[in-house]
Amino acid sequence: MFSGAQISLYPMADDFVGVILGALGALDPYRDRLRIETDDISTLLVGPPEVLFPAMRDLFVAAARSGKHCVLSAAVSRGCPGEPDDPICRSDEIGGPVVPLAERKAAALGTVQATPSTAQPVAAQFSLYVMGTGDHMDEIYGCIDFLKKSGVFDRSKNFCTRLRGDAGAVFATLNEAFCRFGPGAGHVTLDITISANSPTAV
Amino acid sequence: MFSGAQISLYPMADDFVGVILGALGALDPYRDRLRIETDDISTLLVGPPEVLFPAMRDLFVAAARSGKHCVLSAAVSRGCPGEPDDPICRSDEIGGPVVPLAERKAAALGTVQATPSTAQPVAAQFSLYVMGTGDHMDEIYGCIDFLKKSGVFDRSKNFCTRLRGDAGAVFATLNEAFCRFGPGAGHVTLDITISANSPTAV
Repeated sequence: MFSGAQISLYPMADDFVGVILGALGALDPYRDRLRIETDDISTLLVGPPEVLFPAMRDLFVAAARSGKHCVLSAAVSRGCPGEPDDPICRSDEIGGPVVPLAERKAAALGTVQATPSTAQPVAAQFSLYVMGTGDHMDEIYGCIDFLKKSGVFDRSKNFCTRLRGDAGAVFATLNEAFCRFGPGAGHVTLDITISANSPTAV
Repeated sequence: MFSGAQISLYPMADDFVGVILGALGALDPYRDRLRIETDDISTLLVGPPEVLFPAMRDLFVAAARSGKHCVLSAAVSRGCPGEPDDPICRSDEIGGPVVPLAERKAAALGTVQATPSTAQPVAAQFSLYVMGTGDHMDEIYGCIDFLKKSGVFDRSKNFCTRLRGDAGAVFATLNEAFCRFGPGAGHVTLDITISANSPTAV
């Protein structure tokens, strides 16, 4: 199943190019498991979720270490019918047998709780979109129930859910939301915004 | 039908707060037709599409006039089953009788061609998500066909479509994509990124 993300990193600083270039080394451990293409709007990462989310996390944490207000915006997608499959996307985390929603919620919680800290606090919000199935809201409500127990749930907003906590737990929660909800072979996307060092953080 | 957007404005500048505050006046003509709520991640705009898109356009153009590299990120939504309706969202542009896809494409093109210029060039990319219907890809392919004739089509990318041109035509094209494709009463969202003054623009 084809999976990947279009990501953009926004350092609110005159030296935004320097902050971005300084953070790119954080992607090095993942480069052999991702296809990466950059233009002036975003960078495409093609690969399985278990590589995508840690790569986005490490890139964002490296940029946030600059101390500048930084935002990562990402559109993450799996199973889009318009995309060809790619061997680099083979994943153990998606496409397996469908298990009941309650079991998926419990497994997602266990994974988040086992995630190491990065010592980088972040605020995030995201929307989960499940396409092409009549019961998409059941999957979304199931996911929201998981989020509320995740330890990083902040609050519901219109059109999205707000998270707050360590970058490790927040990216792990996003990874679980992406992989465990919606049909295993279905078209699922996340629209993610992650922020650090905001002067107006609440 | 409930409709609105979560928007964020990212000026890549040490004085990002000043750029944002300097642009906010552009929203004044729309304030009585929008509900607006801000936190440290995004600003919620609740209102009909015919107000939302011009408001986002004028805000972004005002920020781009600073000369700084600026990005607007927006998650635009209509018909989300989890949201209560709101009288402020009443719209003549969505929820009418369903007309054939070919007629909708022609109407969308006419609207874009009639849009005045802002003299602000932008690059943009967006994804259209149509939820809860088995034929969501037919609507998306119909929308892509419209986009290719819109005059601001740049190219298809993985997971999204790239636009380029005057801010007026680009926001009008996004408005048409949002209102004319997907079921009139359905749950449709756009994930939008708009960029100006990038030092690496292609």
